[in-house]
Amino acid sequence: MPPLTPPKSGDALFASVDRVNAELFTLTYGAIVRQLLTDLEEVEEVNKQLDQMGYNIGTRLVDEFLAKSNVSRCVDFKETADVIAKLGFKMFLGVTATVTNWDAEGTSCSFVLEDNPLVDFVELPDTCQGLQYCNVLSGVIRGALEMVSMKTEVTWVRDMLRGDDAYEMRVKLIKQVPEEYPYKDDD
Amino acid sequence: MPPLTPPKSGDALFASVDRVNAELFTLTYGAIVRQLLTDLEEVEEVNKQLDQMGYNIGTRLVDEFLAKSNVSRCVDFKETADVIAKLGFKMFLGVTATVTNWDAEGTSCSFVLEDNPLVDFVELPDTCQGLQYCNVLSGVIRGALEMVSMKTEVTWVRDMLRGDDAYEMRVKLIKQVPEEYPYKDDD
Repeated sequence: MPPLTPPKSGDALFASVDRVNAELFTLTYGAIVRQLLTDLEEVEEVNKQLDQMGYNIGTRLVDEFLAKSNVSRCVDFKETADVIAKLGFKMFLGVTATVTNWDAEGTSCSFVLEDNPLVDFVELPDTCQGLQYCNVLSGVIRGALEMVSMKTEVTWVRDMLRGDDAYEMRVKLIKQVPEEYPYKDDD
Repeated sequence: MPPLTPPKSGDALFASVDRVNAELFTLTYGAIVRQLLTDLEEVEEVNKQLDQMGYNIGTRLVDEFLAKSNVSRCVDFKETADVIAKLGFKMFLGVTATVTNWDAEGTSCSFVLEDNPLVDFVELPDTCQGLQYCNVLSGVIRGALEMVSMKTEVTWVRDMLRGDDAYEMRVKLIKQVPEEYPYKDDD
């Protein structure tokens, strides 16, 4: 039986991890996007690549999250979304998200970010209007959820870089895969 | 006359800036390196590109450093090196460096890092043995110093990813350009 340590608060969690300067992170991410735009030419390809990078990162970050947060198994997608918004965003980016716009089935919701460290100092030139600059974030969410057996589609529906009033990421649960244990308990 | 605020300590400085999770930064940087290796094929080209990215980042970070650190003009290269090691590394990466191996003229020194957040979880495959994985850092130093009128060459002389016992970056002052003021004081 796992120890009954209560989950940490978002602030305590963020304080417990190693951190680097947000501006360094922002500029480093900007350097990736610029590099991809130079290399790939098609904005749509850049969007895909950023999403894929995020996915790979998300599949790794979920381990650190589970190890440090003391969060135990979430009962459903709704609880999972709350944990990501309050603890996940805080632990990695130092900000929290609001969960909103649930559909009737409880399988789609939005994360709304008022503060997004990824985009400080960023302006999209006219030639990049189709760019989904924050696709790495939606990829991270998709990758992390897949590691806890939830297959999702994640898309941006509002983006301040495109003139919207907030960042809103739509997360739709496609399939919840029952976890298969590779070993029997009595092995 | 500027206000005589004393410079902040490295710890106070690091506490005063926005931060993100170091693992997220490390994985994001890893994603860049991987992308460049895929796109550019030649390891030597990847090294150059990482250095150039770092240079661009360094020219931007120096502003945040000067604005937040309350550091006033350094009297010489030696003092500049100390400020970078104790305050600059701390403010951006959360670690400090040791300044050592000065030459007789006081124009070359080494920064030695025992802890380097850039390389957590990194192992170089055999095909990448020529890769200077941390070239972004040497580029940052070169870019930042150029913004305060010091033209330098920065190279790695020890690298734990290549089996050395520490990270050692050699900084050689090539030329100190006298600052030119674009406006006269009485304009």
